[in-house]
Amino acid sequence: MHNEKFPSILLEQAVNQFAQLPGIGRKTALRLVLHLLRQEESRVFSLTEALNQLVQDVCYCKECNSISDEEICPICANEDRTGEILCVVENIRDVLSIENTQQYKGKYHVLGGIISPMDGIGPSDIAIDLLVDRVKKGGVKEVILALSTTMEGDTTNFYIFRKLKPFGVRLTTLARGVALGDELEYADELTLGRSIKHRTLYEETLTT
Amino acid sequence: MHNEKFPSILLEQAVNQFAQLPGIGRKTALRLVLHLLRQEESRVFSLTEALNQLVQDVCYCKECNSISDEEICPICANEDRTGEILCVVENIRDVLSIENTQQYKGKYHVLGGIISPMDGIGPSDIAIDLLVDRVKKGGVKEVILALSTTMEGDTTNFYIFRKLKPFGVRLTTLARGVALGDELEYADELTLGRSIKHRTLYEETLTT
Repeated sequence: MHNEKFPSILLEQAVNQFAQLPGIGRKTALRLVLHLLRQEESRVFSLTEALNQLVQDVCYCKECNSISDEEICPICANEDRTGEILCVVENIRDVLSIENTQQYKGKYHVLGGIISPMDGIGPSDIAIDLLVDRVKKGGVKEVILALSTTMEGDTTNFYIFRKLKPFGVRLTTLARGVALGDELEYADELTLGRSIKHRTLYEETLTT
Repeated sequence: MHNEKFPSILLEQAVNQFAQLPGIGRKTALRLVLHLLRQEESRVFSLTEALNQLVQDVCYCKECNSISDEEICPICANEDRTGEILCVVENIRDVLSIENTQQYKGKYHVLGGIISPMDGIGPSDIAIDLLVDRVKKGGVKEVILALSTTMEGDTTNFYIFRKLKPFGVRLTTLARGVALGDELEYADELTLGRSIKHRTLYEETLTT
């Protein structure tokens, strides 16, 4: 009966593996696997080799905890970037998003998660101690908390705030406000309220 | 600059590979790769191993051209299924869809594509000759054309029709009509017209 449904066990295995990825159902998995079957063998081997290499050889930057090929990632190793400002983010996707803006020339600290008691993630499961050590070492003047504005993000922000307060470092968060191009009437009240409270000098907006 | 954007070349390679799959953009690719990085190594090796095995060892059934682990696929090898009816489909996904209905007990013929001059796919690029040979051998009484109702599907149907006509085999196509559960007022005119022309004896619907 099982065989009847998938005429090939090899095919079924590959589909099962793909279907375990997040957001990929069995139909999509089958479509992807059939696509790969239509490619040259070498094309598929490039994919599998890249994945195998990644999980075998990946390491995490000893400074900022970002995914890296070496002990110190290229961002931390870059002497053109100031180590006086650290931007605390949840994961490497946030690093890439901020890098894309080309507005930030400090360094990062990748927590690798946020505090979430519901998911059993406590402060010791993410790289907060590493952050405290970095600040303790001296040289850091400002820490930007760039976590998402969820309950978990707020909790993590507050935990970090209490841990870093003794070191007299300046703690900031991302500006929240009406998105560029958005119409005021569609902005939610909290955001609009906050964007009035933290209004910016008009002159300062002329340079960006 | 390139390095700046992705702090890890290994990560970038894996993302690039995933982003080449159909329907997967760079953001999704990154999400999938980061998900795999959070799994056990062995989990990733299962995925890559399944893919490698598939492309190395896959073969196509000598009878019906379906993906198979052996020379003859389990459906063709199943003696409980009649070889007197062949259902011609574009690819193995259609086989799985029809199998899921549990309404069909004949065998299949998988073309592996449809005639599409726009994409440079002619009759010799798909398994039509194999189908003609099967019918020529004798024993086949009916061929069901189950291709999609696109211009390419119609072209392929007509080509097969002309090729098989000399053998006096019965050629049928899937019934088209208003889908079960659909409201008449939302059915398109062509489908509704066809479902009136090819109306079914009420008694025959009572058994399914």
